[in-house]
Amino acid sequence: MIRVLGIDPGSRHTGYGVVDGHGNRLVHVTSGTIAVPGSLPFPERLGVIFARIDALIRQTAPHECAVEDVFMSRNAKSALILGQARGAAVVAGVQAGLPVFEYSALQIKQAVAGFGKADKEQVKQMVRTLLRVTGRLSSHAADALAVAVCHLHSRTSPLCRQVGEQR
Amino acid sequence: MIRVLGIDPGSRHTGYGVVDGHGNRLVHVTSGTIAVPGSLPFPERLGVIFARIDALIRQTAPHECAVEDVFMSRNAKSALILGQARGAAVVAGVQAGLPVFEYSALQIKQAVAGFGKADKEQVKQMVRTLLRVTGRLSSHAADALAVAVCHLHSRTSPLCRQVGEQR
Repeated sequence: MIRVLGIDPGSRHTGYGVVDGHGNRLVHVTSGTIAVPGSLPFPERLGVIFARIDALIRQTAPHECAVEDVFMSRNAKSALILGQARGAAVVAGVQAGLPVFEYSALQIKQAVAGFGKADKEQVKQMVRTLLRVTGRLSSHAADALAVAVCHLHSRTSPLCRQVGEQR
Repeated sequence: MIRVLGIDPGSRHTGYGVVDGHGNRLVHVTSGTIAVPGSLPFPERLGVIFARIDALIRQTAPHECAVEDVFMSRNAKSALILGQARGAAVVAGVQAGLPVFEYSALQIKQAVAGFGKADKEQVKQMVRTLLRVTGRLSSHAADALAVAVCHLHSRTSPLCRQVGEQR
């Protein structure tokens, strides 16, 4: 069994999803959204993201971590803010000793929905079906579960690479 | 006495500088550069920045942390990379319970060199003089010391604000 933590980082809402892979069978362990109060000073928001991911890793003990490749914003200011949130989340994984892998949005859609042009709602529906999630599922949690599923599908394929491996 | 850790974050070179303020007297405690091997996968680079800042905080026990306001790159890709490095550094401060303050490049130059149009070499020379640093001083370490000095000069003035306070 391999347990993967998927993360969809954001400065206000960070999605997370933990999925177990038993051979070809995927099992949903937990998922949700870390909502960070906009009223907090920015570094404290980063601290909340770090602390919550850190606590989640302690609780669920994943073997590996997967993160969606950063959105290539045309706006440098929003990229700096998103980058800092992503840095806080990735550092939480690295500090816990987890290998961190990244996948592009296209790779995730292909892995989850079979083709790269699926819309967000289709991806969410496929995640629900694949993982038999019946309760409430936020779009952030669905995206985090999708990257975890993508990693479980791809981890033995050449699609898979550790973040930054080609940099 | 108030002890301030200044940080100049970067994905390859992160400068740090610790300065004590005894009333109007400033004392250089330590400074240097955290050089992160470009050969490391990107999340591990973030992990190195976090771990080294965390260790520095444990060793030197600063009361507060000051960081230069992020460079507003026009390039969203470099902004995402810098943002992640900055996130890793800021989170190390927040996790250690330090208040984190930010200053613009202009504020730092004004505080250190008395006018906002000082060039990098002038800032470095002023930092050397103010803090009586005689040995080798990298530009990253000088920038980190400058933001620490700026914070010590400004912390009781309205210039001073905690990062993100106005967001």
